[in-house]
Amino acid sequence: MAQGSYIFVHTPRPAHERIEQALEACLDRAGGIGGAPRLAQAMRHAVYPGGARVRPHLCLAVAQACGDDQKALTDAVAAAIELLHCASLVHDDLPCFDNADTRRGQPSVHAAFGEALAVLAGDALIVAAFEAIARAGVAAPGRIGPLIALIARKVGAPSGLCSGQAWESEPAPPLTLYHQQKTAAMFVAATMGGAIAAGADPRPWRILGERLGAAYQVADDLLDVLAGDGDLAGKPIGQDQAHRRPNAVAVYGVEGAVAMVRRLVAAAVDAVPPCAGRAALVELVRAQATRLAPQNLAVSAA
Amino acid sequence: MAQGSYIFVHTPRPAHERIEQALEACLDRAGGIGGAPRLAQAMRHAVYPGGARVRPHLCLAVAQACGDDQKALTDAVAAAIELLHCASLVHDDLPCFDNADTRRGQPSVHAAFGEALAVLAGDALIVAAFEAIARAGVAAPGRIGPLIALIARKVGAPSGLCSGQAWESEPAPPLTLYHQQKTAAMFVAATMGGAIAAGADPRPWRILGERLGAAYQVADDLLDVLAGDGDLAGKPIGQDQAHRRPNAVAVYGVEGAVAMVRRLVAAAVDAVPPCAGRAALVELVRAQATRLAPQNLAVSAA
Repeated sequence: MAQGSYIFVHTPRPAHERIEQALEACLDRAGGIGGAPRLAQAMRHAVYPGGARVRPHLCLAVAQACGDDQKALTDAVAAAIELLHCASLVHDDLPCFDNADTRRGQPSVHAAFGEALAVLAGDALIVAAFEAIARAGVAAPGRIGPLIALIARKVGAPSGLCSGQAWESEPAPPLTLYHQQKTAAMFVAATMGGAIAAGADPRPWRILGERLGAAYQVADDLLDVLAGDGDLAGKPIGQDQAHRRPNAVAVYGVEGAVAMVRRLVAAAVDAVPPCAGRAALVELVRAQATRLAPQNLAVSAA
Repeated sequence: MAQGSYIFVHTPRPAHERIEQALEACLDRAGGIGGAPRLAQAMRHAVYPGGARVRPHLCLAVAQACGDDQKALTDAVAAAIELLHCASLVHDDLPCFDNADTRRGQPSVHAAFGEALAVLAGDALIVAAFEAIARAGVAAPGRIGPLIALIARKVGAPSGLCSGQAWESEPAPPLTLYHQQKTAAMFVAATMGGAIAAGADPRPWRILGERLGAAYQVADDLLDVLAGDGDLAGKPIGQDQAHRRPNAVAVYGVEGAVAMVRRLVAAAVDAVPPCAGRAALVELVRAQATRLAPQNLAVSAA
C-alpha cells in the first residue's frame, strides 16, 4: 500500500535527495489504488521535471540551521511548499490565465491532459500538500496546526499566493502588495515553515523570506523581459506585457531592476538570524543569488 | 483584525447558526485587509446563498452524538467540509467541466466573476478549509493531524472528491468507485470528522457516511433526470446525459433508483452506532431522507 511510502529513512542525505524523495512519496500516495489514472499522471506532470526547487531547498536549509530534529516533518513541509508552487503554476498556465502551452520546456498540464484535469490536478496538489504535513507530524503533533495555519495564510486569501494571482484580475493592482503575495509569501512560508518544522520560533525568519522573495520576483520580471526567445525561461516570455501585469522592469528599468536584485540579496544575507547553521545557510542564499543573475541579464544590464 | 472572527461564543446555539457563523468567520478572514477584493467577493458568491448544508449538519450531529467537547473545532470542521464542497461546485461549473451558468438559482461563480477568479476562488476555499481546522484546533492540537489527514484523503487523490471528478475524464469510469469518491467520500469526511473533532474513535462512523453518501448520489442522479425545467434543481439539469457521465437512473431505471434511495437511507439509520445522542442523530438522518425524496420524484416513481 501507498501508506509505506511515507516512511522516510534518515541516514544523512543531501538536500536534493530528501526533497525529491518527499515529493515522490506524495505523488506515489496520490497515484494509489482506486484513483483516476490520468489525474495521477497529470499531477506527476506538474511536478516533474522539477525547476530549481528553490523554496523547498530554502525551507530545508532553515530547518537544518534550527537543528532539524524532526526530519520527516521537515521533508514533508518542504515537499508541501513545492506542491503548492507547482499547483499555482498549473492553474496559472490555464487558458483563462496566461494561456501558456509550455512550462519547463514541456507541454503545460492543460496542453497535455486538457483543462479539466489541469484544474483537478492543481486542486489535488493543494490537498496533497496539507495531507503530507498532517501525516508527517505524528511525532510532533503540536507543530501541525502552526505549520498548516502559516502555509495556508501564505498560499490563500487575503495575503497569500491566491490573492496575489487574483490581483491580476483587478484594474490597478498595487505593485508591492501584488509581489509580496504572489511571490514573497511562499518564500516566507519556506523560511518560517522550516523553523516551525524544527521546533524553533519562526518570527526571526520572516525577513529573510521576504527579501529573498522580493529578489526572486524582480529577477523573474527581468527574465520575462530579457530571456529572448523563451529557451532560457522554459516558458513563453513577454507574458507580463501581454497580460498587462505589473512588472518591475517596466517601473524601474533594466538597470534599476538589476541593482534592486543585488540590494535585496545582500539584505537577505544580512537578515539570516544568528543560529548554529548560519554559515551554510548564508552560502545557500549566495548560491541562489548567482542563479538569480544569469549571464545574459548581467550583460543586458551592463 | 480578522483574527478576532475566529473567537466563537459557546452559548447553546442551533446547528444552523453554528454552521453559518463558522462559514462567515472563514469568509471574513479570507476577505481581510490587503486581499484582492473581487477574489473575496467570488469566494462569498460560492458559499451564499447556501444549499441545504447537508454535510456540515451531518458533521455537527455526529460530533454532538459524541459529546462535542471542542465546539470551536467541531464548527471549523463542519465549515471546512462545506467550503470544500462549495469549491468543488465552483470548479465543476467551469466551462471545461459542466459549463453551467447557474447554481442555486444564481449565476455560477465564473459567470459572475470570470473563469480566472472562479479557479482562484475554488483554490482559496480549499486552502481556507484546512486553515480553519488548523486555527480552531489550538485547544486540542492532537486532533488537528488526524482531522486534516482524513479530510484530505476524502477530498483529494486517489480516493476523494478530486479523483471522483477526474473519473469523468476517463473513457469507462467504474460506477461504484466514481460515486464513492465523488459523493460518498465527503459524507464519510463529515461523519468521521465529526467524531474526531469530539475526541471519539472515528471508525464506527464510516458506514453511516458511506450509506448516506450513496443515497444522496442516487437521489442527485434522479434529480438530474427528473427535475423538469431545472427550477427544482437550481442548476442546469440533464447534465449527466449531456456529459455522458455515469448516472444510476440510466443503469437501474427510475423505480430501481427510488427503491435504492429508500434502502440506503434505512441502512444508514441502522448504521448509527450506539452513543449518547443516537436518537437525535437518527432523527436528523430521517429528516435528510425526506429531503432526498421530494414530491415529484415520488410521483414520477409511482
